Order: sequence, then C-alpha cells, then structure tokens
Amino acid sequence: MQCLWLENQQLTIREVPVPQPAAGDALVRVRLAGVCGTDLALLSGARPYCGIPGHEFVGEVMSAPTDRHWEGRRVVGEITIPCRDCPACAAGRTSHCAHRSVLGISNHPGVFAELITLPVDNLHTVPEGVSDDQAVFTEPLAAALRITEQVALAPGDQVLVIGSGRLGQLIAQVLVNAGCRVHALAKYPVQRNALRERSVKLLLPEELTTVTTSFDVVVEATGSSAGFAEARRAVRPGGTIVLNSTFNGTAQVDLSSLVVDEITVIGSRCGPFDEALDLLADGKVDPLPMIETTYPLQNAALAFDHARRPACFKVLIRPPQ
Amino acid sequence: MQCLWLENQQLTIREVPVPQPAAGDALVRVRLAGVCGTDLALLSGARPYCGIPGHEFVGEVMSAPTDRHWEGRRVVGEITIPCRDCPACAAGRTSHCAHRSVLGISNHPGVFAELITLPVDNLHTVPEGVSDDQAVFTEPLAAALRITEQVALAPGDQVLVIGSGRLGQLIAQVLVNAGCRVHALAKYPVQRNALRERSVKLLLPEELTTVTTSFDVVVEATGSSAGFAEARRAVRPGGTIVLNSTFNGTAQVDLSSLVVDEITVIGSRCGPFDEALDLLADGKVDPLPMIETTYPLQNAALAFDHARRPACFKVLIRPPQ
Repeated sequence: MQCLWLENQQLTIREVPVPQPAAGDALVRVRLAGVCGTDLALLSGARPYCGIPGHEFVGEVMSAPTDRHWEGRRVVGEITIPCRDCPACAAGRTSHCAHRSVLGISNHPGVFAELITLPVDNLHTVPEGVSDDQAVFTEPLAAALRITEQVALAPGDQVLVIGSGRLGQLIAQVLVNAGCRVHALAKYPVQRNALRERSVKLLLPEELTTVTTSFDVVVEATGSSAGFAEARRAVRPGGTIVLNSTFNGTAQVDLSSLVVDEITVIGSRCGPFDEALDLLADGKVDPLPMIETTYPLQNAALAFDHARRPACFKVLIRPPQ
Repeated sequence: MQCLWLENQQLTIREVPVPQPAAGDALVRVRLAGVCGTDLALLSGARPYCGIPGHEFVGEVMSAPTDRHWEGRRVVGEITIPCRDCPACAAGRTSHCAHRSVLGISNHPGVFAELITLPVDNLHTVPEGVSDDQAVFTEPLAAALRITEQVALAPGDQVLVIGSGRLGQLIAQVLVNAGCRVHALAKYPVQRNALRERSVKLLLPEELTTVTTSFDVVVEATGSSAGFAEARRAVRPGGTIVLNSTFNGTAQVDLSSLVVDEITVIGSRCGPFDEALDLLADGKVDPLPMIETTYPLQNAALAFDHARRPACFKVLIRPPQ
C-alpha cells in the first residue's frame, strides 16, 4: 500500500506491506486524514519519529477478525493504545498508560496511509449525519473538549483563548457552546474572520495590557513561551490557565506569583470522542470553514509544506479510495 | 508601646505610638506571635518592607469602638485587609483584592508589637479549650487547610509533602486527617521524629528516584526550584502539584511535560480560619510539639536569628502582658 514515510526529517511516498490486524484490532481503510501541529513538530525533529506519521482520521473498517460487527462501519479512533496492564491502566487512566503507543506519534504507524490497524476498543462509529470532512476533526475537537472536563466552567465566565489557529478555533467554539464569554487573541485576518462568525470577541495583543488580570480562564493554544507569559498576565487571581499545546523547550515561570495569586495551571491533552461526535452531529461545532485544502496522499509532502504556512487552517490528506 | 521594627534589613526594638482603631477596627493586645518563613524573607530583603513585621498572632480585643461586643474576646485574625470595592472584592474573592493591605507584610503594621489594629471583620474568636500556644498556629494551619479546598482529595490518595519544616508539618497533619496516605521528604531528624508520630511515611530524597511518578498529589512546601523539580518527578500523570510556599526568583519549567502528562499545578495561599480553629479545638491537629522556643518581644531580633537555624520549628514571640 501507499503511505507517507517520515525519516531523518524527510518525507517520502513509499510502498509498504498492508498491516496485519492482531487479535482485538481492526484493519481500517483511511478515507480522510488531517495534518496537525504535532505532525509538523515530528517533521521538524522536535521529537524523534521514524515511520508513517498522522493521527487525525476518518476511515472504514475493512476487517476486524475478532470483532466482526465492526466491519463496514465508518469510524474515527482514539490515538492512545494502552498496555492495559500498568498501574495507570488499572486505575482507568489509559491515556496516561506508562507503556502506551500513540497512533502516528510513538511506536504505532499513523494514518497518512491507505490502511491502518487500531484496536477496536479505540474506535467510535461516526453518525450518519456527520460527513467525512466533519468527522476528521473529531480528535482535535475532543482535545478541545477536554478543557470542559478539567475546568469547572460557569456560564458567563470570561475566557481568553491565546492562539486562534487550527486548535484555538475549535477551543473557542467549544467554550462559546459552554456558555462562556469567549475572547481570543488572533494574529491573522483569516483567523479573526472565522472567530467573528462565532460570537468570539477579538482582542489585539496590544489590548491585552489594558485588560490584564481580568479573565477567569485563559487557554494557551500557541505552545510558545510568549503565549504562556501572555496567559499569566491575562488571568485573574484565583483563575486558571489551561495549556493545550505542546511547547518546545522550557519556560521561565515565576512560581511565587502563582502562589500569591493562587493560579491553577492545567495541562490538557486527549478528550472525549463521543462528545465530540455529538457536537458535530448536532451542528453545535462547525469545523468546515476551517478546511484549507485537501491533498491526495501521493502529494502529502506538499500538504505538510502547505500546513506550515502562517495562518494556515486544516490541511487534509486523502488516500486513493 | 514596644515593637520590633524592620528597616533596611535591620531589626531594632522601638517605642512607637499606640495605633488608633478606625471605624470597623479593633485594637488588639498581642498575647503571642509566631515567626514565619515570610517574616524571614522580609528580613533578607526578598521583598521590600519597612515597619513592624509579623502576621501570626493570638490576642485580646482591648477596644472596638464601632463593634463593642468584640471587646474582651480572645481572637486570631485573618491577615488580608481588602478594599471591599474592587472587582475581586465584589466577586467575594477578598483575599485577592487588588488593593489589599496585608498584616505585617504589606502596608499594615504587624504583630511583633504590644498592640495592633485590625478590622473586626478579620477576627475570629478563639474557643475556650484552645490555648494561646495552639491558637497562634491558626494562620499557618488555615494555609495548610487551603489545599483541602482546592484539591478534591479522596481517602487513600497517595500524597507526598516535600519539605517538613514549620508549614510542611501542619500540611502533613491536615492531609493525614483528610484520610490520605501521606509521605514526606524530611531533611532533619527532628522533622522526621515529629512526622513519625503522625502516621506519615518518611522518604529520603534518594528514595524518590525509585518511587517516581506515583503520587496523586504532591505538595511543595520548600519554596525552592529543587523542590519543584522533585515534585514534578514524583507526581503521577494526571496528578496535582500544590505550591504552598513562596519561591525566590523564577524556575525553569518544562511546560510540554505538563501538557503530555496533564499535570495540574495549583498555587495555594490563605485558608479558612474557622476550620483551623475547629481542628485545634477537636485535637485533630496538634501543633504543640512544633514549638521550638518563646522569646520576649525585647529579644525579638534573637528570635529571628533562632528561626533561621536549619530544622528550626516554630519560634514564638511574647510581648509584655
């Protein structure tokens, strides 16, 4: 089968053998896949990876030898493959499994390929009314929803989202949906236009200095030290900073000020797929305006080039069907 | 009246005029006061302060011109004096008042003196069964209790307290009382002996490497970057680090690892006085073994020298009665 191969920070299209599903696995034909910031980080060498990248997908189950009722279903899939044996798994915290593989990120071939395997336990059936173009956003939307599981948001809460790219847009929509008064720092006109249509109040970075320390919750979705510093300035005493993006390197943090102002800092990663699919089915989150373009798999390297452009929204990759 | 005066990192005993209570204030005779790490930080110049230091006290109300029913009562007092006018105060978060004064720390003369003034709204009556020696621990015990307000602790939770000095000892007792399985890193034998009597499991720093990432909650009570690094190593994915001590300077923090492991970091400061007094009255927390010695006010500078010794527990200061 055809796939995109990442090795030594180089992308190539390759032919590789079709993966074989183990017991409990499904073989899934990828219908559509999305390029995420994490994929770009793998390409830039921020963390080591050799193999097929990609973890956002919608597909169709071709075979599931030990769970045949899955066959023929249109599915999305959770990306963490837990060992189900370590203390974290035993405690039900499988996304924090000490020995986990992660689809297209760590020790499990990813979705920029014609076919993948994934445990059926990871799969979620896509409702009929949700198109492939919508369903491919399930994983990042679930990550955005994780915030609502971790922070006790109240309707009317003043929330600021820093960074209005691919993930920030979904986070803003989720928080509007939760009844928060959502503000966003958006660097580019295309980002601002998308937010305006979603009742999000736009701020410019220079305005932040005049509204400092007024937000109940600040979501950092840029993954930059500058973004964290802005978040610290913007959050009110007793408020919460949610970190939703992985950062490169370490940041200088004034821990004393976190104590004096009783700030909570929460790292946020994988979220609930079922709830994400419900929001898509109900039309409460609309990801379609965020689709920048779709590349065929054989041009996937170009898709990565495209996704790296400033202000680029979601670039999709479609394997041959 | 006699007081201890701090100016240019020098302590002197001075005569100053008796403070005059404003409307809503009480004039309180200090019966006993405690030396805290924050007082030592003021002396070392970590933050600027000129005036009478000290904020841990038990006293007796001499006069309360607009609230006479307070007169004659034995009291302890919350240390934040809010403006009751800013947005934080309007929202009920008076301890985060933007224009607050803080007893003996910022813009309000402290308790190493014969007499102080404090708003009656800050006062709490000390139950009869609670001695002065116990009551003087109300403020740090309340700070320790703040953790139980901020973190959803479950009985059986594995908790590690890093730092077993004055504050760490109270935190450990509070967490044992909450049903947690409490472990502590204690540097000095006197600290270890005190903890052993309280069902706290002792760890040596070198043992931490073999039990890494296993604690549901880690409380950092040293105020050092090394303590924060130990906390990060010891907390499990999905767990919580509570920062309970003010730090000098900034720390290098790997924000990405907080995201990947979904760690929560919470700054923790002032806590509930009523609950602290209840614990003292019920004998559920026993601070008396933590009293190192008591100095008369005229020797308060020596009390500070004593309190700076390694492994020193609580040094008390008694004004002339």
